[in-house]
Amino acid sequence: MEYSTFGRHVAVDAWGVRYDLLNDADWLKDQLVEAAEATGATVLSVQSRQFEPQGATVLVLLSESHLSIHTYPEKGFAAIDCYTCGETVDPQNAVDRLMEALKPERVHAKKLIRGLGEIEVETPVMKQPELVR
Amino acid sequence: MEYSTFGRHVAVDAWGVRYDLLNDADWLKDQLVEAAEATGATVLSVQSRQFEPQGATVLVLLSESHLSIHTYPEKGFAAIDCYTCGETVDPQNAVDRLMEALKPERVHAKKLIRGLGEIEVETPVMKQPELVR
Repeated sequence: MEYSTFGRHVAVDAWGVRYDLLNDADWLKDQLVEAAEATGATVLSVQSRQFEPQGATVLVLLSESHLSIHTYPEKGFAAIDCYTCGETVDPQNAVDRLMEALKPERVHAKKLIRGLGEIEVETPVMKQPELVR
Repeated sequence: MEYSTFGRHVAVDAWGVRYDLLNDADWLKDQLVEAAEATGATVLSVQSRQFEPQGATVLVLLSESHLSIHTYPEKGFAAIDCYTCGETVDPQNAVDRLMEALKPERVHAKKLIRGLGEIEVETPVMKQPELVR
């Protein structure tokens, strides 16, 4: 059996997120798992880490690749990646769902098209903060 | 205590890698951990998954962010990401070390500069296959 190497990878830098949300590894883990599953991805395992004095990382291993978040609560900053191989699961849907949970004041995002040759870079349309909040 | 949100994220699509290397989750896990540690990163935990009939994923949770690989042995393809926050650990070093282990015939890479505002995209200089092999 062969699989398509085609994949989409959305990288998001989110700013202006509440400290308490970004400093709760367990809550973030739940949000990532829910976002992945709502998008149709299959969650195989999860690593998470609560840092001291603050900060968290969650890495979700998907059948389709991965979903991750790294947070800097003291800066209101989170770096999110969702990379999914194949046509079925659109990583943008998982990212959009996470933005609804995190409610950032502003976001910067890039989308990489991978597994086809040169890595193509696009700037995805993200929901505006006014719509997200 | 506050940390810098600055981070570098190198995404590499590697082609022409030997099937047996790409289909060995345990070997890949060792390579990723060694590459991370050789670069000065701190490995906190690792998830890995061997897929059937072939393929593997390894996600390494670093103090500095993460290092990941997803493989398609039947296509000779691996997608690698190394994202490190802060100035100390250069993800390019980890990627270069992995290329020495995987010996791809060709690679395509992008580097994202994150945590400063707009995500800047660069095309990093990768060692040529002739040098890697």
